[in-house]
Amino acid sequence: TRTIKLAVVAGDGIGPEVVAEGLKVLDVVLEGSDVSVERTPFDLGADRWHRTGETLTDADLEAIREHDAILLGAIGDPSVPSGVLERGLLLKLRFALDHYVNLRPSRLYPGVATPLAEPGDVDFVVVREGTEGPYVGNGGAIRVGTPHEVANEVSVNTAFGVERVVRDAFARAQARPRKKLTLVHKHNVLVHAGHLWRRTVEAVGAEYPEVTVDYLHVDAATIFMVKDPARFDVIVTDNLFGDIITDLAAAITGGIGLAASGNINPDRTTPSMFEPVHGSAPDIAGQGKADPTATILSVALLLEHLGLTDEARRVFDAVAADITERGTAPRTTSEVGDALAARVATAARVSG
Amino acid sequence: TRTIKLAVVAGDGIGPEVVAEGLKVLDVVLEGSDVSVERTPFDLGADRWHRTGETLTDADLEAIREHDAILLGAIGDPSVPSGVLERGLLLKLRFALDHYVNLRPSRLYPGVATPLAEPGDVDFVVVREGTEGPYVGNGGAIRVGTPHEVANEVSVNTAFGVERVVRDAFARAQARPRKKLTLVHKHNVLVHAGHLWRRTVEAVGAEYPEVTVDYLHVDAATIFMVKDPARFDVIVTDNLFGDIITDLAAAITGGIGLAASGNINPDRTTPSMFEPVHGSAPDIAGQGKADPTATILSVALLLEHLGLTDEARRVFDAVAADITERGTAPRTTSEVGDALAARVATAARVSG
Ligand SMILES: CC(C)[C@H](C(=O)O)[C@@H](O)C(=O)O
Ligand SMILES: CC(C)[C@H](C(=O)O)[C@@H](O)C(=O)O
Repeated sequence: TRTIKLAVVAGDGIGPEVVAEGLKVLDVVLEGSDVSVERTPFDLGADRWHRTGETLTDADLEAIREHDAILLGAIGDPSVPSGVLERGLLLKLRFALDHYVNLRPSRLYPGVATPLAEPGDVDFVVVREGTEGPYVGNGGAIRVGTPHEVANEVSVNTAFGVERVVRDAFARAQARPRKKLTLVHKHNVLVHAGHLWRRTVEAVGAEYPEVTVDYLHVDAATIFMVKDPARFDVIVTDNLFGDIITDLAAAITGGIGLAASGNINPDRTTPSMFEPVHGSAPDIAGQGKADPTATILSVALLLEHLGLTDEARRVFDAVAADITERGTAPRTTSEVGDALAARVATAARVSG
Repeated sequence: TRTIKLAVVAGDGIGPEVVAEGLKVLDVVLEGSDVSVERTPFDLGADRWHRTGETLTDADLEAIREHDAILLGAIGDPSVPSGVLERGLLLKLRFALDHYVNLRPSRLYPGVATPLAEPGDVDFVVVREGTEGPYVGNGGAIRVGTPHEVANEVSVNTAFGVERVVRDAFARAQARPRKKLTLVHKHNVLVHAGHLWRRTVEAVGAEYPEVTVDYLHVDAATIFMVKDPARFDVIVTDNLFGDIITDLAAAITGGIGLAASGNINPDRTTPSMFEPVHGSAPDIAGQGKADPTATILSVALLLEHLGLTDEARRVFDAVAADITERGTAPRTTSEVGDALAARVATAARVSG
C-alpha cells in the first residue's frame, strides 16, 4: 500500500467548506484501492494571524515540505490588511516551494452556462509562470503618504525561470491533439521581459517542430478570449498576465466556481499545491452556498500529479457528468460534494 | 472665426485609410460654421523609420506642440522590431505631451453585435493613467541571450501622477448620472503601487461625497466585464491594467472597430491626441476593409475636448444611428465614412 501525505490548508472564508468536500471525494475515489491518505491540517490564514501575528513560519514551511502534496482552500479576509496573507502566506508557499508551473485548465462542459452567446468548443490550459514577474515582491515606496510619494513595483524575469516554464508548456502542447502553443505577453511595451519570453519560446520551439506557435499581446488575448476562445490550446504566460486571463477564462467557462488550479513543481523536489482559482468569498462563508466543484477538480489535478491517473479520470468524469446535468436549482456545498462523491463511487464500482 | 491647428499622424497600416474618413467627417461637421481646421500632416511611422532611422525627433515634437490637437491613425508594422515604434513614437508622444488621462469610453449601442449573450445596458468610461506604471520604460536586462539573463521591468507610480488622474476620474463620475467610480488594481500583490492608488482614491473621494466608490482587483474586473459590464460607470486604473481591460471592453461592445480614445492633457498645456484603440492591422491595410468608425468617434472626442460640444454630439449621434442600422453587409472604409458624413451633414441642416 502507498500512503500519500497530504497537507491540508483549509484557510479562510469558504475555504474550509469547499476543502471538506474535496476531501470527501478524495476519500471515496481511493476507497478499496491500495492508496491511503494521511492528512495533516495546517492552521494558516486570518485566524492564525489575528491570534499570533504569524502568516507562515519557517517551522510551518518545514512541516509542509514533508508532505507529498497540498490541498488549499482559500486565503484572505477583509479583517487583515490587503497583501499580508496574500504575500505572507499564499504567494510565500508558491515561491518557497518553487511552484513554477501554475496550471489552470479551462474547459466549457456542454450544458454549462456561459456569458458568451457562441462560445464554441473551449478546451485549453493556461501555464502561468508562478515564481517570477511582478509577483516577486521587489517593490518599494518612498515618502509614503506625502505628495512626493513614489511607489515602484519590479517585474523580475530570468532566463532560468522563463525557460523551465516554457519547456513545461511545450511538453504539454506536444501531448495534446491540437499541439498549439500561444505565448501571451506585451513585448511591444515591456520590451526587456517580453523579448526574453519571445526568444525563449522561439528557442525551445525549435525542439518541438510539431507544435504550432502563436503570439498575442495580453490586451488582444482578452479579445480572443471572448470572441474566439476555441482558438486556444496551451497558453504560456507570465505570473500577472496569467492571473488576469485565467479569471477571464474561468468566467467564460462557467465561472470561478468551476475553475481548478495546480501550483506545480514539475521537478518534484517539493510538494505541489492544488487550489480552486476562486478566493475566500467572505460574504457567503459559513452558509453552505459555495460551489465546491473547483476544489474537487483541483483534487483531480492532484491525483493526476501523483500518478493516480485512473482516479483522476473518475473525478473528472463525475464532475463532467454532474455539471452537464445540474441545471439551475441551487444546491448546498455539501449536496454538490455528496452528488459528486456518489458519482465517483458508482464509477468505482463499475470499473473496479 | 476660430482656426484649429490639427496635427495629423496617419501612421502605419490602416492608419491613413481610417484617418482620411475621420478628416472627411470633421470637414463636414464644421461646414458652414465659423471654425476652420488647418491640418499639418506628420510623416511618422514605419516608412519614416526605414528611410531615416528616426521615430520622433525633437524637431517633430516641437512642431507637434504648436498644434491644438492631434489625430492619430495607428502605429506599428511587422517590418520594424517590436517596441521601436511603440516606445519611440506612440508612447513617446503620450509621455512627452503628458497625456495623463487616456480616456476610453465603452458603450454598447442597440443592435450592435456583441459576443455576450446578455450584455445589459453597457455605458462606461475607462480613465486609464497614461504617463506612469509599467509603461515608463524603466526596464533593463543583463546577460542578454545567456542562460543567466535577468530582464526587469519597473512600474513607477507617483502621488503626483496618481492623484491628478484620480481627480479627473472623480470629476467625470460626478458629472455622470450614476456617479460611480471603480478603482481597478491589484493591491493584494502589487502592494506599494496598489496602496498608493487606494489611498489616493480614498482621499480624493472624500471631496466627492456623492460618488459611490468601488474597488476590483484586475482579475476580478475581467470577470465582471463579461458577466455584468452594466455595473461599470467610471473606471480608473493604471496604464497596463487600463490597456488590458479597454481591449476587453471594446470586444464586448462591438469590437475594436468601434473603440475610440483620447490621450488627454486636462491642463491643456500641450495638444491632446485622439486615436482609435485598434492597431495598424497590416494584414488588411490598403484594402478598404478597415472600419473607420473608431477614428470618427475619436474625432468626436476631439471636438468635445476643443469645446465644440454641439459638433461632437452630431458626430456621436450619426455614429449611433448608423451602427444601429448598419446590419452585417460589408461596406468599404470610405463607404462607412461617406455614410457617417452624410448623416452628420443632414443633422447639421436640421439643427443649423
Ligand atoms: C489571491 C491572489 C494573490 C492570487 C494571485 O494573484 O495569484 C489569486 O488571484 C490567484 O489567481 O490565485
Ligand atoms: C500599441 C501599444 C503600445 C498601445 C498600448 O499598449 O498602450 C495599444 O495597445 C493601446 O492600447 O493604445
